[in-house]
Amino acid sequence: MKRDIFDQISPLDHRYYKSNQELMDKVSSYFSENAAVHYQLRVETALAQGLEEAGICPIGTAAEIEKACAAINPDAVYQEEERTHHNIRALTNCIAQRVSESVRPYIHLTATSVDILDTANALRFRDAYHELLRPMLLALEQELIDLARREKDTVQIGRTHGQHAVPITFGFAVAEYVARLGERITYLDHGVAQLKGKMAGAVGAYNASALIIDNPEAFEKNVLAKLGLQPATHSTQIVAPEFLLDYLHGIVSAFGVLANLADDFRNLQRSEIAEISEAFSATQVGSSTMPHKRNPWNFEHIKSLWKSFAPRIMTAYMDQISEHQRDLTNSASGRFAPELVTGFILALDRTTRVLRKMTVDSDQMRANAQQSSERFVAEPLYICLAAAGHPNAHEAVRKMTLEADQKGQSLKEIVQQEPTLTKYLGTISKRGSDALENPLDYLGIASQKTETVCACWEEQLYHRN
Amino acid sequence: MKRDIFDQISPLDHRYYKSNQELMDKVSSYFSENAAVHYQLRVETALAQGLEEAGICPIGTAAEIEKACAAINPDAVYQEEERTHHNIRALTNCIAQRVSESVRPYIHLTATSVDILDTANALRFRDAYHELLRPMLLALEQELIDLARREKDTVQIGRTHGQHAVPITFGFAVAEYVARLGERITYLDHGVAQLKGKMAGAVGAYNASALIIDNPEAFEKNVLAKLGLQPATHSTQIVAPEFLLDYLHGIVSAFGVLANLADDFRNLQRSEIAEISEAFSATQVGSSTMPHKRNPWNFEHIKSLWKSFAPRIMTAYMDQISEHQRDLTNSASGRFAPELVTGFILALDRTTRVLRKMTVDSDQMRANAQQSSERFVAEPLYICLAAAGHPNAHEAVRKMTLEADQKGQSLKEIVQQEPTLTKYLGTISKRGSDALENPLDYLGIASQKTETVCACWEEQLYHRN
Amino acid sequence: MKRDIFDQISPLDHRYYKSNQELMDKVSSYFSENAAVHYQLRVETALAQGLEEAGICPIGTAAEIEKACAAINPDAVYQEEERTHHNIRALTNCIAQRVSESVRPYIHLTATSVDILDTANALRFRDAYHELLRPMLLALEQELIDLARREKDTVQIGRTHGQHAVPITFGFAVAEYVARLGERITYLDHGVAQLKGKMAGAVGAYNASALIIDNPEAFEKNVLAKLGLQPATHSTQIVAPEFLLDYLHGIVSAFGVLANLADDFRNLQRSEIAEISEAFSATQVGSSTMPHKRNPWNFEHIKSLWKSFAPRIMTAYMDQISEHQRDLTNSASGRFAPELVTGFILALDRTTRVLRKMTVDSDQMRANAQQSSERFVAEPLYICLAAAGHPNAHEAVRKMTLEADQKGQSLKEIVQQEPTLTKYLGTISKRGSDALENPLDYLGIASQKTETVCACWEEQLYHRN
Amino acid sequence: MKRDIFDQISPLDHRYYKSNQELMDKVSSYFSENAAVHYQLRVETALAQGLEEAGICPIGTAAEIEKACAAINPDAVYQEEERTHHNIRALTNCIAQRVSESVRPYIHLTATSVDILDTANALRFRDAYHELLRPMLLALEQELIDLARREKDTVQIGRTHGQHAVPITFGFAVAEYVARLGERITYLDHGVAQLKGKMAGAVGAYNASALIIDNPEAFEKNVLAKLGLQPATHSTQIVAPEFLLDYLHGIVSAFGVLANLADDFRNLQRSEIAEISEAFSATQVGSSTMPHKRNPWNFEHIKSLWKSFAPRIMTAYMDQISEHQRDLTNSASGRFAPELVTGFILALDRTTRVLRKMTVDSDQMRANAQQSSERFVAEPLYICLAAAGHPNAHEAVRKMTLEADQKGQSLKEIVQQEPTLTKYLGTISKRGSDALENPLDYLGIASQKTETVCACWEEQLYHRN
Repeated sequence: MKRDIFDQISPLDHRYYKSNQELMDKVSSYFSENAAVHYQLRVETALAQGLEEAGICPIGTAAEIEKACAAINPDAVYQEEERTHHNIRALTNCIAQRVSESVRPYIHLTATSVDILDTANALRFRDAYHELLRPMLLALEQELIDLARREKDTVQIGRTHGQHAVPITFGFAVAEYVARLGERITYLDHGVAQLKGKMAGAVGAYNASALIIDNPEAFEKNVLAKLGLQPATHSTQIVAPEFLLDYLHGIVSAFGVLANLADDFRNLQRSEIAEISEAFSATQVGSSTMPHKRNPWNFEHIKSLWKSFAPRIMTAYMDQISEHQRDLTNSASGRFAPELVTGFILALDRTTRVLRKMTVDSDQMRANAQQSSERFVAEPLYICLAAAGHPNAHEAVRKMTLEADQKGQSLKEIVQQEPTLTKYLGTISKRGSDALENPLDYLGIASQKTETVCACWEEQLYHRN
Repeated sequence: MKRDIFDQISPLDHRYYKSNQELMDKVSSYFSENAAVHYQLRVETALAQGLEEAGICPIGTAAEIEKACAAINPDAVYQEEERTHHNIRALTNCIAQRVSESVRPYIHLTATSVDILDTANALRFRDAYHELLRPMLLALEQELIDLARREKDTVQIGRTHGQHAVPITFGFAVAEYVARLGERITYLDHGVAQLKGKMAGAVGAYNASALIIDNPEAFEKNVLAKLGLQPATHSTQIVAPEFLLDYLHGIVSAFGVLANLADDFRNLQRSEIAEISEAFSATQVGSSTMPHKRNPWNFEHIKSLWKSFAPRIMTAYMDQISEHQRDLTNSASGRFAPELVTGFILALDRTTRVLRKMTVDSDQMRANAQQSSERFVAEPLYICLAAAGHPNAHEAVRKMTLEADQKGQSLKEIVQQEPTLTKYLGTISKRGSDALENPLDYLGIASQKTETVCACWEEQLYHRN
Repeated sequence: MKRDIFDQISPLDHRYYKSNQELMDKVSSYFSENAAVHYQLRVETALAQGLEEAGICPIGTAAEIEKACAAINPDAVYQEEERTHHNIRALTNCIAQRVSESVRPYIHLTATSVDILDTANALRFRDAYHELLRPMLLALEQELIDLARREKDTVQIGRTHGQHAVPITFGFAVAEYVARLGERITYLDHGVAQLKGKMAGAVGAYNASALIIDNPEAFEKNVLAKLGLQPATHSTQIVAPEFLLDYLHGIVSAFGVLANLADDFRNLQRSEIAEISEAFSATQVGSSTMPHKRNPWNFEHIKSLWKSFAPRIMTAYMDQISEHQRDLTNSASGRFAPELVTGFILALDRTTRVLRKMTVDSDQMRANAQQSSERFVAEPLYICLAAAGHPNAHEAVRKMTLEADQKGQSLKEIVQQEPTLTKYLGTISKRGSDALENPLDYLGIASQKTETVCACWEEQLYHRN
Repeated sequence: MKRDIFDQISPLDHRYYKSNQELMDKVSSYFSENAAVHYQLRVETALAQGLEEAGICPIGTAAEIEKACAAINPDAVYQEEERTHHNIRALTNCIAQRVSESVRPYIHLTATSVDILDTANALRFRDAYHELLRPMLLALEQELIDLARREKDTVQIGRTHGQHAVPITFGFAVAEYVARLGERITYLDHGVAQLKGKMAGAVGAYNASALIIDNPEAFEKNVLAKLGLQPATHSTQIVAPEFLLDYLHGIVSAFGVLANLADDFRNLQRSEIAEISEAFSATQVGSSTMPHKRNPWNFEHIKSLWKSFAPRIMTAYMDQISEHQRDLTNSASGRFAPELVTGFILALDRTTRVLRKMTVDSDQMRANAQQSSERFVAEPLYICLAAAGHPNAHEAVRKMTLEADQKGQSLKEIVQQEPTLTKYLGTISKRGSDALENPLDYLGIASQKTETVCACWEEQLYHRN
């Protein structure tokens, strides 16, 4: 059933589909209804294979079912569902219509609908991760590593509270995201590997399978193994919700890392700061009334997507509650879970693309840092004085900064007027006096640490696998 | 651009579109991208009319713009946007391509994009409410009123903590929802009337319009009046977010009322309670493995939709924050707001439809109440004793209920063995002794109150308008 | 029972109590457990008065109960609760211990616990609003009005996307918050007036009261009227949750306005922007290692409180669901609702205090605006050209801004090199040419609008009441 | 500073402190302000030891600092903070006041406040887990294991959608929670081990420490090792927020498991189901007006606590965003994080206590299951028919269940009237005919699986450590 995308309700299906068509077609291959049905049919096939191997049905049954499954699409299933009001019985009826009468009894045998649905869900979340999401995460991580390395010696003022603190390098600032994103990839790798399937029947006690199979737990393991999955230690009608919840937590928390990066990078584009800029094409319009505007709209967009999707994790927390062996109140809500992953994929793609074309203005970075160098020299001064034994160095320097402000003089000038400091200043190390002389060199180990961080995550994410 | 609905990501655009096609087509006429563009064009037209009336452009300008707008669809706008990377400048370019050169200067003149977008948004949320949502709310309210009246004398046990408390009538239980839904409709009526538009330019200070128009505030009011809207007392680039937030709060809190009703009604269908049942067709399947199952899946579905959509209100709260005269981090997130309303519409429609076919088993209700009548007589007994002056009636009765439990006797039997009660019991009123004799008649004013509640909301919602 | 505040868990009870002792003592008089018990006793007294007036108990009963209530504190109630495991029966037992035997039967008669609890809750939320919260809101509003008026002519660059847009005045920027906060006060005024009580018994059907009182609805109205409250049209065991929810929504959405103001004002303090500054005392430390730091920590704190409390509104949305005539799953969660209001009160107080001492650097504001004046002249140029009939003014000016960037020239210089513009520029109005000559005067009606907004809300909030 | 607990705002500090005094005193030793200061002093001591070992200060410095720290309490720190308006500089001043002048320079040297705060936080969350939370989790897990084993053969109806499905055993139902809680403990074990400290200075680049120490990364590792912690691969002013976020996610998701258990167990106490009951003391009151009430208030309370605390995880997700090297908007919000853990601890304690005294009514369980045995036999019938080759067994049985309903006959009677089934029924296995004859024995491997689940988690949680 075809429909104009601009008649759709979800921006994922109109605006963001239109502007990211190639990517969204890939997303659809895991998260559309077409994909859902396809994955369900894969599970029905695996079940048939398991039954055949257990000697429940004649050799050839599974092959016939597999072939029938290949011919089924959602249109057929939905048409049948109008009669059954039950989606999985509709699916199995569609299979039954396409196989010989002798095969029919074995379709779906021993399974309850959720055996199929939850297992299919684990499969598609897993495949989407390994085939689409993880490569995208690695591509962004690589982009960040490259940027960090490229800018590892570019002096930038470190900011806390939005105030100039002491200097770092821009590469070091980017290395924050190398580390945080890398760590989230590791989390997600682990989370995805925990996704579970089930084939334990209506209430999880193998009532049906135990009737015709001697070892129903072994049977379950065998069916799931065909799909690369394992069962949890216990299921009810459903797989315990925590496995998917952890995965979604991984998604949302990785999304939070992107949102933080986006906030950092849009603030660096403020007119007064102007340290980086997003690419802006020759035909691009920034405002419909202000022809001069160039906005950090890509990073704003990423933050905005985060606001739209992050709160949806609350649904997953609420879906932890399913009364007794299961109530259905997790059904519709569970159908929306792929949207959360899709929103993240869009943000991930945008972040990678905008970073690739981003311009860094190292002169402006240096100039901004320079502006407050006479102030932030206060920290190395305090450290040097204290290391030299000044009993109250922080307070002494603090008062001098106030005095400098009041007199409109530099901190250096105030220091020179302060005879009590002479005995300490005389003992200052080479590194200390360098920092006091050239505050923009007061960079700690920013450059070296950038390299360490990049190397560490490169090793963990790319070379071990 | 057409696409198979089963390739879409959002369940709103595949599963719930497919199964609610007629309704969802109506929803699309407010909340699709097509509708969004249509509403934006309405605002551009009103703006042109305002400019013409202000003498800024020649007579006929607005008519030509209006005609051009009628020919524009999202396909054209999106194609232009590929060049401009700006959706409203793309829209205005599309208009410009369809008018004579002399008209072009006046398209969008004085407006910033958000003048169009926020005003169009207010319009579509308002129209969707008055033309679709409110009639649906009233239909459900009427269904509830009819049900409450029909069952106003049907005895049902009142339950607190899931435990039998004292009896009510089923109509009285339904009247709760008549009142709560009615009250939410009133809230929404008020909220919708507060939605605001703006035509105050890039930063809300009428910089552009003040350049060419003597009274830009009057001009704004005139343009908005053509659309049935008013401005807020102050705007920045955007309309203050609280107006839409209140509307969405109204939606989510009305959704909560449906969720509560759904929980009540699915619990009344528990096998052990069995007081009501959803309709079940002859071909309907309850479980793919348990042929006997009949599930309260509609009410479960309503609860599940609530879990899916209610947390999204957090996005609207976060979107209250827009830095300085505006940042764009509310843009993508704002595009998803119609989904929240759509989810509620689906739940509303489902609730109304399932109530229409719901069966009430008044015999089972009475039987359930009867089961505990020997216990809940404790309340009227306590009240009668106290009213007769017993200084410690609650405690005395409480202990007798424990004694009854221990001895396996009825409370009545225990009472008869208690000589200290005689003097109080002798003075009990007719109403009191009736309640003690026929506990199922201990209904307070349940029936009469049901009638009062129904009449009150009928008056407020249907007859005043 | 006394305890060291630094052994407490909640920052509201240690850190924020310690640093806001006077204010928090006022908060305690509504939201502590002491206050809760006090309000419950007020409701028990009103109930007794109602019973006496209904002729249920002898004249003098209510007075005796009122006197007993005055002597009760939480210690006594909690001690009794250890026996009863029920807080309201513990409360009524405490009353009973303090009255004569003949009065005892009439304590709490006809009421269920929630009649007392929900009514007491409505009372304390209402009183806290009228006596504490609203005066604080008005004080902040006045502070904002004063600031807006004081700075109504102080030129500041308007910013969208963090980029310089076109100029406004700082007073106009502040007027945004005058309007948004004023509007929220109006919302809360309405919301508080909707808070409801109840005196309808165990399941809301007046079962108990109808047994001994002829018109139980009139009785309920009379009892509540003594407390200045009304009943809803229908109650179950509880008051419908939407009334309190709307109030909490009002709180959280007003909190969002403060959070937005805080974000605006902390960003204005960025080292590179530096347009305003929070007061900084002579002994104050900004960083334990960087003696020069002066941070916008107050506005950061306000934003942080918002992050801490805003999500708690989800609890109130979840508490809308109470199965059948009531389940108890809203009990503990409801106890935490006052924390949300308390968090807002702290933020409100902080905002008002920091605004009082805030410094505005109008020179820096002007200098920042000046920096981009050669760019933002693009808007008035476009408007003037269009108004003069240029068919494609926006695009023409946009291209010239790009050219200016590339050539390193000012837009003005580029314009002068463009002969096609001459015919339009010749017809420009006085206001137009003023804006092009003195872009910092391109302020729209910023100053006048500031005055209008202040006057409007002053009238609505201060003079009508 | 002492204060009446009933004057406090947070229920954690009045009601729940009062009723759980012993437990809450333990909680205070990690999560009170006293504890916070104590942990901060531990970090300052470790830092001094590190400096001493690095040769920065004379031997004995650290010992003197450690001794001084032992004498400091929050009262002193808060008093000093009134002067500094900075809590960590107040803390270090307090230390300075208690050491000799020669030691003063080395207090806090190289550290920024957050080095102390974030490290101290990791410490107290870790200690609270290992010393308090994990033992409590294991105690509940053991309680569940014991209950599951005790009831592994107690027949109970399995329920899906609140409808009778097919039978299980109550022990098997409990085993769900053995598995889910066990899995969450494993998650938390991992999460706690990931908590990180830092000692990298104001912006994470070791600016200060690199000035006086040759290998500042080794220095950081050495300091943290004294506290049993490690640094992350990169820090800014703060530790990357994801480590604490994962821990809080572990808490909230474990809370969700308790909430599900609570919902299950309060529903099993419904008057009509009555399969289990919470203990009820002889003096306990269930309702202030209905003397007969016995409510599942403990499980309701647990669910209510979950509603109160689970949404607060949104604050932790929002706190992932900290602009540039850090903004302070995570400061106040971070102070409330211990409340979330405290709420969970209360729920955990309550769950364990109520389970210990809970009564299981196995007769009622069996009776409830018996009631629908003539219906749920439909599943084994369908499975047997299908396994025997019936091509359409599910549909055939489904129709017969409808026929049974219509005719008021049992499914068995309908089956006997159906000649087409004879050929299949003749081939049914022993297990099949047993299930058809004695539907209450149709239990799958419920009992055996209960044992497997219990043994598996016992092994993982108790014997490996």
